[in-house]
Amino acid sequence: MLTINAARFLADFRALAQIGATGDGGVSRTALSPQDVRVRAWFRERIEEAGFEYHMDGAGNQSARWRCPDEDAPTLLLGSHLDSVRDGGRFDGALGVLCAFEVLRALRDAGERLPFHLEAISFTDEEGSLVGLLGSAALAGRLTPEHLRHPRGGSEALRAGLARVGLTEESILAARRDPDTLMGYLEVHIEQGTRLEESGTDIGVVTALAGLRSIWLRFVGEAAHAGATPMDRRRDALWGAADFIQRARARVMADFAPGVMNCGEVRVRPGAFNIVPGQVELALEFRHGTDETLGGMEAALLALAREAAEAFGLAVEATPVGQERPALMDETFMAAIEDGCRVLGLSSKRLMSLALHDAQYLSQVMPTAMIFVPSVDGVSHNPAEFTRDQDCINGANVLLQTVLNLRR
Amino acid sequence: MLTINAARFLADFRALAQIGATGDGGVSRTALSPQDVRVRAWFRERIEEAGFEYHMDGAGNQSARWRCPDEDAPTLLLGSHLDSVRDGGRFDGALGVLCAFEVLRALRDAGERLPFHLEAISFTDEEGSLVGLLGSAALAGRLTPEHLRHPRGGSEALRAGLARVGLTEESILAARRDPDTLMGYLEVHIEQGTRLEESGTDIGVVTALAGLRSIWLRFVGEAAHAGATPMDRRRDALWGAADFIQRARARVMADFAPGVMNCGEVRVRPGAFNIVPGQVELALEFRHGTDETLGGMEAALLALAREAAEAFGLAVEATPVGQERPALMDETFMAAIEDGCRVLGLSSKRLMSLALHDAQYLSQVMPTAMIFVPSVDGVSHNPAEFTRDQDCINGANVLLQTVLNLRR
Repeated sequence: MLTINAARFLADFRALAQIGATGDGGVSRTALSPQDVRVRAWFRERIEEAGFEYHMDGAGNQSARWRCPDEDAPTLLLGSHLDSVRDGGRFDGALGVLCAFEVLRALRDAGERLPFHLEAISFTDEEGSLVGLLGSAALAGRLTPEHLRHPRGGSEALRAGLARVGLTEESILAARRDPDTLMGYLEVHIEQGTRLEESGTDIGVVTALAGLRSIWLRFVGEAAHAGATPMDRRRDALWGAADFIQRARARVMADFAPGVMNCGEVRVRPGAFNIVPGQVELALEFRHGTDETLGGMEAALLALAREAAEAFGLAVEATPVGQERPALMDETFMAAIEDGCRVLGLSSKRLMSLALHDAQYLSQVMPTAMIFVPSVDGVSHNPAEFTRDQDCINGANVLLQTVLNLRR
Repeated sequence: MLTINAARFLADFRALAQIGATGDGGVSRTALSPQDVRVRAWFRERIEEAGFEYHMDGAGNQSARWRCPDEDAPTLLLGSHLDSVRDGGRFDGALGVLCAFEVLRALRDAGERLPFHLEAISFTDEEGSLVGLLGSAALAGRLTPEHLRHPRGGSEALRAGLARVGLTEESILAARRDPDTLMGYLEVHIEQGTRLEESGTDIGVVTALAGLRSIWLRFVGEAAHAGATPMDRRRDALWGAADFIQRARARVMADFAPGVMNCGEVRVRPGAFNIVPGQVELALEFRHGTDETLGGMEAALLALAREAAEAFGLAVEATPVGQERPALMDETFMAAIEDGCRVLGLSSKRLMSLALHDAQYLSQVMPTAMIFVPSVDGVSHNPAEFTRDQDCINGANVLLQTVLNLRR
């Protein structure tokens, strides 16, 4: 049975983890940063050294291309991303790109002949330090000038990043590929959760990517002197926000599991030791697998925000700032992954992803599937992120078998 | 009976409220800002126009001086401050300076002869946009180079402000006045609370200024992916902080009234919609009237912080960043104020101030007392801050009678 070259694959993984390393096991390679530029040079060298055709498109997506004899055949994309969050882990994204690249080498070295072109691709800015899912949205034709107008990371950072690799907003918007030329997309990724580890399962077969909604909740009370104003006469916006956080956490855990919510940022105004908070903005995000459950969560959370505001004499306003709709994975591809697991003697289970991935947009224009490998303790977006060597190797081998299964 | 010139006094108050006006009834005149420079020029003009000796000391404190014939007599200081918090009200501080200035004019115009020098003084940076109680601490000899090394408003703002009025750190530190030359300090101020209004009392006679302690509480959990990490495996630092806020509020109201607590600022790290907060810093401040009650509050609040941290698998660290000890007012001065109220037919009650004032440091080196007038709805540090004209006039007349009483 054909398998990947594990030693070569792991050596590449270790070399890659040195680029942008933070000294504590993690990496900091935000999209189009100087560290990301270094990792891009490294990946290009590996591609050319291996003898594949190197390609970078207008969105900065980098590919190793291995063409089959039939020029008109569609292309099967395998990939992930090489950027990381600030002070992130070394597995998130990087593992999937190296699995894809190793599968190309293993198939080519074994003299396999495929009825489709194969391409290992690293997408630009998956993590969103600039825009988020930038490269994959551009390739899927789902990126609009509007996305580039108010980038999450700021316009200055976007301009500086694009200049570093010779891209322009025009080149990004022109990076769409005709879906008729694409057969589909497969990605290996760490689970970033504990369902595989806790159930002792080798491989997760992703059924859908949860959608998410992001809302700024603004609690409005009255700024006041923090000494002279009696406690029972305060309209402290932070009291309402704190109450909401507690209520929302309990409600989501009780009624919406496995859906999740997060309050990831707080902005207090005026913001001083000696002034009662007059306004508090809370960055609320919640995720679930269907539009229906997302709608139910939104209604429940906004009702809790109103209750918390009322309890402390506050007003509350909700400003939606973003959403991603749930994305369904392709049944044929999922079955091909499960067949691959059986061939390799690996256990598998179907699960929903609560994280966003490049598959989000790609699944809208072509058959798409994702292969999850276990994350130790579920830690992710953190230098302590870890996946065992054997699980990394399993992921690459399942991807290899899945590609072979899709020959049929 | 001698009283102040109410029309002149109110006209000055209205003119003063235009300087740094924010258009909603409030003023924004942070210490040594361009607005504060304008207000300083205005006050100097009024002093010189009235024919008093104008003086500015090395800390930027501005005075109108009215000397008695005996050169060796001590000086009775009457005053407050003309700076405001950002987007503050027009009464806090300004009222006290104008009461002091009007009392000088009324006594001089009536041909009164006093056995002490009288000085109407406006202290620099009472509100703390730079250092806090800067001018009064300097005059009392309680300011050290350490206070100037890490100013709350930042070193850059302090340098820029000092340059605007031609002061230096050296001149500030040399601004101490010999307590033997000072007879005491009297200040009229708005209550910034509701005890006078609710009890229908005209004048508050302050018995003590509450002390305060400021602490940065840092809750440390683990940053994590806000989608993939299951809710029940998170160590979300914001959950602990929110829980602490709720517990602390309830505990202080139940067990420490009239003491108060405030959480006025929150800093979340990393601070993004899609990352579970790994660290939250909370600016905690609490106030009470004695060292004993402050110690009891501190022990209770730190115990609650540990309980909240433990409940969510977090660590918590407390870093004290400042404190002011409670300050006792002078019994003779308090009695002189109460006599003044009786003469004027005004009701009075003794109460503790939960706000800091320049009296904090001045009371350490000379007899000191404060006269409170009612604040409508207790609103303060807010453009909606309001005190009725008659209450402003009452404050000035009580100050006048108190000075006359202290002749004896």
